[in-house]
Amino acid sequence: MDLMKQSLVMHEQNKGKMTVASKVPIEDTYDLSLAYSPGVAAPCIEIEKDRTKVYDYTIKGNTVAIVTDGTAVLGLGDIGPEAALPVMEGKALLLKRFSNIDAFPICLDTKDVDEIVQTVKTISPTFGAINLEDISAPRCFEIEERLRAECNIPVFHDDQHGTAIVVGAGLDNALKIVEKQKEDIKIVINGAGAAGIAILKLLLKLGYKNIIMCDSSGIIYSGRPFGMNPIKEQIAEITNLDLIQGSLDDALVGADVFIGVSVANLLNQSHIQSMNHDPIVFALANPNPEITFEHAKEWGVKIIGTGRSDYPNQVNNMLAFPGIFRGALDVRAKDINDAMKLAAVTAIASIVSEDELSEDFIIPKSLDERVAKAVAEAVANAAIESGVSQLGQLSVSPLRSE
Amino acid sequence: MDLMKQSLVMHEQNKGKMTVASKVPIEDTYDLSLAYSPGVAAPCIEIEKDRTKVYDYTIKGNTVAIVTDGTAVLGLGDIGPEAALPVMEGKALLLKRFSNIDAFPICLDTKDVDEIVQTVKTISPTFGAINLEDISAPRCFEIEERLRAECNIPVFHDDQHGTAIVVGAGLDNALKIVEKQKEDIKIVINGAGAAGIAILKLLLKLGYKNIIMCDSSGIIYSGRPFGMNPIKEQIAEITNLDLIQGSLDDALVGADVFIGVSVANLLNQSHIQSMNHDPIVFALANPNPEITFEHAKEWGVKIIGTGRSDYPNQVNNMLAFPGIFRGALDVRAKDINDAMKLAAVTAIASIVSEDELSEDFIIPKSLDERVAKAVAEAVANAAIESGVSQLGQLSVSPLRSE
Repeated sequence: MDLMKQSLVMHEQNKGKMTVASKVPIEDTYDLSLAYSPGVAAPCIEIEKDRTKVYDYTIKGNTVAIVTDGTAVLGLGDIGPEAALPVMEGKALLLKRFSNIDAFPICLDTKDVDEIVQTVKTISPTFGAINLEDISAPRCFEIEERLRAECNIPVFHDDQHGTAIVVGAGLDNALKIVEKQKEDIKIVINGAGAAGIAILKLLLKLGYKNIIMCDSSGIIYSGRPFGMNPIKEQIAEITNLDLIQGSLDDALVGADVFIGVSVANLLNQSHIQSMNHDPIVFALANPNPEITFEHAKEWGVKIIGTGRSDYPNQVNNMLAFPGIFRGALDVRAKDINDAMKLAAVTAIASIVSEDELSEDFIIPKSLDERVAKAVAEAVANAAIESGVSQLGQLSVSPLRSE
Repeated sequence: MDLMKQSLVMHEQNKGKMTVASKVPIEDTYDLSLAYSPGVAAPCIEIEKDRTKVYDYTIKGNTVAIVTDGTAVLGLGDIGPEAALPVMEGKALLLKRFSNIDAFPICLDTKDVDEIVQTVKTISPTFGAINLEDISAPRCFEIEERLRAECNIPVFHDDQHGTAIVVGAGLDNALKIVEKQKEDIKIVINGAGAAGIAILKLLLKLGYKNIIMCDSSGIIYSGRPFGMNPIKEQIAEITNLDLIQGSLDDALVGADVFIGVSVANLLNQSHIQSMNHDPIVFALANPNPEITFEHAKEWGVKIIGTGRSDYPNQVNNMLAFPGIFRGALDVRAKDINDAMKLAAVTAIASIVSEDELSEDFIIPKSLDERVAKAVAEAVANAAIESGVSQLGQLSVSPLRSE
């Protein structure tokens, strides 16, 4: 039985993958009088007096909403909120498994930006943070931006930042191997969707300078007479320093790094051979990358990372989001800001020791238990230092035990 | 340490009472490939093809949202959504404990009826049913009515119907003891809030005919020149057959049954003595009833029920809602209709066998494991017979095991 069939059977047998459990006994009238009426009035009264006490007496401080409208799910596209639910459940399991966060899927029956923003704000009292998931671009940018501004809890769109943070960590480590400097290298990003744009913005914050972005119409440059929109005009302002025009082929000439968030089997041998010495490739198209691991090695790619778990250097946002939410919750951060994202990059990169670092090991394994803990600590400290913690000190040790 | 203090400590030590757990292992890359990418695409694709498959492959079919705006919490009133969260968590534990339903609290940061209706509709794809909780009257009536009409999953406001169903069961049993007929008796309900009005409507559907409703301004009658509103005008149309006017004192003269959902220590000895022989009293004011058990017995009340667990005949909606939601979910009911509510009344009443039936035992114990199962089966069958099941037959045995 193939994997897809096995997954279908597993989902049907379990009727979904998650369940709600009680942390306290409900066996006799005494238990009931503590957990429910009349005793439950005590925490209610304290929280009414001081709303911040909701973090002391309820699930809020360890609870994340995984919010989607089902418009950009996996590689499947706009499949609707019901069809997106299995993915959101899976995401909840990862948050539980790797950072002991209680996450719950909220699948929205609307694609309207205003309705999505309003709904998330309205349900926010129950939650300590919001994970936006699988919402299509460009709507996802405005939704995250507005929610970050209007909510008093952190809001994080994982499809944008999760992937970008892991790519940033991988690229920082890759440069140590090829002994090149951030400031000197030329990077080509192919694909101007949510992930591509988030990677671009993060790499600039990490100190990378010379980035060229391509879309289906080729190199993006200011005033390109076709296939532009406000966001691409914005991209043109901050990329393509030499103002070059043309196709992806032109962009790749002399490039040190290719980052693909686009389509399978895009790169051929001449593409690779037109790049600078020791080329680095992140081929992140899923499930089939822009270039296979085998071709990359055969054609002279020095270091290759893909989205696949069956090859070295898997770029998996599992390495980022569990620790990021853990750290943000632990210091009651009111936002997940750039300082916290950059701290996550450094924490992920640093898991690979100098001895371990090699062409086939620039990114930690997805299941490495150390990663979420290291990311959580780094993100929590960055939140405190950047002034978005509402505690000022660690409330509980990261990865609080059951 | 008193109960309130103990409850506060328990809530703080546990940081809330519920948690999310995984039903499948997440230990290695194989587990991940089934529960998450790439295997999770399989159920997504099936659900996209046929939305009803969401019940087969996800948590939806066993998941209930407990929705509140925090405006009428316990006896505390409008304490806000954060302060209401401990109660909603408690409710979730009861649904888990007594009918193995996964329930999740959704506390809304709005009191606007339109916003509440819109928000609940928008988040409904994740849930199999909606439990409205602690929403103040009269807003709760419109909110439930509109959501029942506009949602394709059952919507049930427990504060209205839960209490009414248990009172109905208790009264049916009480009449067997005093050997009176539904059609003949005179019932006085004191308190015209959500619970009082729901009790009135259910008792009429159960076949009780002569009901007088009182509020703080006395007996409600058509055209009363003070303290009326559209809902009370509606009440006047269906109650008070003899069109009597006056105070609660006047209403009680010759009454067979008093049902109080009002204020503590309201009834005195002369009230009781003005009632018909073998008076039945449901004194449901919380935490202190309209008349104490001791006074009731001393002054000649034949049968008394209260909301208290430390006296006989506790009217506790725990007896109703777990089984009602279990039954509705098990047959994928698209509504919780009158037929299902009346079936719950009969099921609860029938748990007390003829041998057990006595003045001090007209209502099953709140922790009686048999109740939820009996209610679920009765409600599921009533849903099928009344045509609101979307299955036509039991999908799984009620109280599905873990």
